[in-house]
Amino acid sequence: MNEKRTEIADLGEFGLIDRINQHISLQNLTSLKGIGDDAAVIDIGAENLLVSTDMLVEGTHFDLSYTPIQHLGYKAVAVNISDIAAMNGKPEQIVVSLALSNRFSVEAIDALYEGIQSACKNYNVDLVGGDTTASPSGLVISITAIGRVKKNKTVLRSGAKANDILCVTGDLGAAYLGLQVLEREKEVFQANPNMQPELEKYDYVVGRQLKPEARMDIIYELEEKNVVPTSMIDISDGLASELFHLAKNSKTGIKIFEDKIPVDSMTYDTAIEFKVDPITAALNGGEDYELLFTISPTDFEKLKNYPDIHFIGHTHDQPHQHLMITKQGTAVPLKAQGWKHF
Amino acid sequence: MNEKRTEIADLGEFGLIDRINQHISLQNLTSLKGIGDDAAVIDIGAENLLVSTDMLVEGTHFDLSYTPIQHLGYKAVAVNISDIAAMNGKPEQIVVSLALSNRFSVEAIDALYEGIQSACKNYNVDLVGGDTTASPSGLVISITAIGRVKKNKTVLRSGAKANDILCVTGDLGAAYLGLQVLEREKEVFQANPNMQPELEKYDYVVGRQLKPEARMDIIYELEEKNVVPTSMIDISDGLASELFHLAKNSKTGIKIFEDKIPVDSMTYDTAIEFKVDPITAALNGGEDYELLFTISPTDFEKLKNYPDIHFIGHTHDQPHQHLMITKQGTAVPLKAQGWKHF
Repeated sequence: MNEKRTEIADLGEFGLIDRINQHISLQNLTSLKGIGDDAAVIDIGAENLLVSTDMLVEGTHFDLSYTPIQHLGYKAVAVNISDIAAMNGKPEQIVVSLALSNRFSVEAIDALYEGIQSACKNYNVDLVGGDTTASPSGLVISITAIGRVKKNKTVLRSGAKANDILCVTGDLGAAYLGLQVLEREKEVFQANPNMQPELEKYDYVVGRQLKPEARMDIIYELEEKNVVPTSMIDISDGLASELFHLAKNSKTGIKIFEDKIPVDSMTYDTAIEFKVDPITAALNGGEDYELLFTISPTDFEKLKNYPDIHFIGHTHDQPHQHLMITKQGTAVPLKAQGWKHF
Repeated sequence: MNEKRTEIADLGEFGLIDRINQHISLQNLTSLKGIGDDAAVIDIGAENLLVSTDMLVEGTHFDLSYTPIQHLGYKAVAVNISDIAAMNGKPEQIVVSLALSNRFSVEAIDALYEGIQSACKNYNVDLVGGDTTASPSGLVISITAIGRVKKNKTVLRSGAKANDILCVTGDLGAAYLGLQVLEREKEVFQANPNMQPELEKYDYVVGRQLKPEARMDIIYELEEKNVVPTSMIDISDGLASELFHLAKNSKTGIKIFEDKIPVDSMTYDTAIEFKVDPITAALNGGEDYELLFTISPTDFEKLKNYPDIHFIGHTHDQPHQHLMITKQGTAVPLKAQGWKHF
């Protein structure tokens, strides 16, 4: 045997997805949009059904030595709801599959489901099914979320036009810095188990890492203001990576302004402490689960006074030119680093 | 700390599901049926949407030392489609999530997706989304299938009435015996790697284990014959276990006849070789992915000549009396053994 062996790391996660996707064609008329957006879009008549799925793996996505298992349950739901939000949809149901080793007690599973059900209540979704199975080691949580959106309000990654305004909700980089704090405290604890972790001054960034929220409030706000974004994506891998996805799918260029990127003051201080540029954390940190979207300039007036939406730049008609204007006024090429799991 | 610790094994899989389910209430009017059937049922207007999910874990559900990875991909889809079939529905979409370690090459993933896409083509479903992520060890496949069924043709586990006829498709016990053959050949190979496995005379039972089919053909046949079963379930854990589920949900008793349980001749011979009672394999073996359903006696004429549907007994009005009439004519209590993963 002399078979070719290509390592997954050589392709990367997005390369692997592209490779899988190239062989796929859709057969059913009800399959409106397959792989390549935050959620699949299925025709159910007057509305579209949205389906998103995410898998969280112990040792890759979470570390139970510092993650309360209730929060993990909550987060597993929230990250899926965030994908439904990114299509401008409202979630209605989830199914939850778990693989877990006998290291986990029934009480631990109860706590995990407490978090799951707390998120279900907050986002008004029903847990309607799942699968629970043994695993040789560790915990894997796979959730599929189902939502709905009116046909004419469905927002894809591909709808931005040149000169649309780029909007970001909330603030960025906190979840990444929260992870750095938790990893540091873990090391300190491992070196000296009598040390108590000092997390008070990091409560915001740590909370953003452990218990992120899907921005459904923004989806309801957009509805109330009668604004349909021209394109949207949730910020799971870092702002820069998501900007590239929007630009590629919409065939536009990107111009953003460094001084418009929203960074919370505790995020800023923690970044400085960790010797990380706060803007780098915001651009490449990931796991913020905020929304990045574009609006037509004509909709700007409707949103300009909303405190939690930030206007960070605009699209333009040079599809491959993605620039950031620094605080000093210099134009630098935008780079996407993103997450590397493989 | 003196927290209570209960082992999952003390509850078992069904006990754990009951425990999780007892805290769940449905909030959305569109959530018609949650946990407790082969698939969740969601109201989408003229039709019902069906959602089922299954997770396959390396080391628990499959062993890649004798499972061709293409077949694994095919099987992962088929077992989900089988759940949609068990609601009398037709599948339309799937989403696929994978967690995999760097032991797997890109070529192995290609082969896995070949199997997945082969099943998609066979069952006319579209792969519309998923998630691919790294895992510290092993392979986990989580698939969610989405299907549809007309409102008045949706079949639950709970609809059987006393004196309905119990029907089983295909034949039972083969997948279990296929697994025994594969495990034996693995041991032989490990003892002497120069030995070639002898699988020709076991091709049927091995094929039933490695590449089961969802019985969508039966769903189309029932539609053509204009028969709507009164209740249905797919046989994943063994006939006896599924009979108990139907009986419990429908609040009926069960009477089956040993000589009516369909067992293929190769299954029979292999069972004898392995010193297993063929009927025990059929009752408790699992992974057959055939359909167990009940029909009103008035529908018997429409199905009686269909070669692949077997009439194994009937329901009755004593909810806790589940009997098998042996070949000798003795009534013995039916026992469900099922699978124990934990």
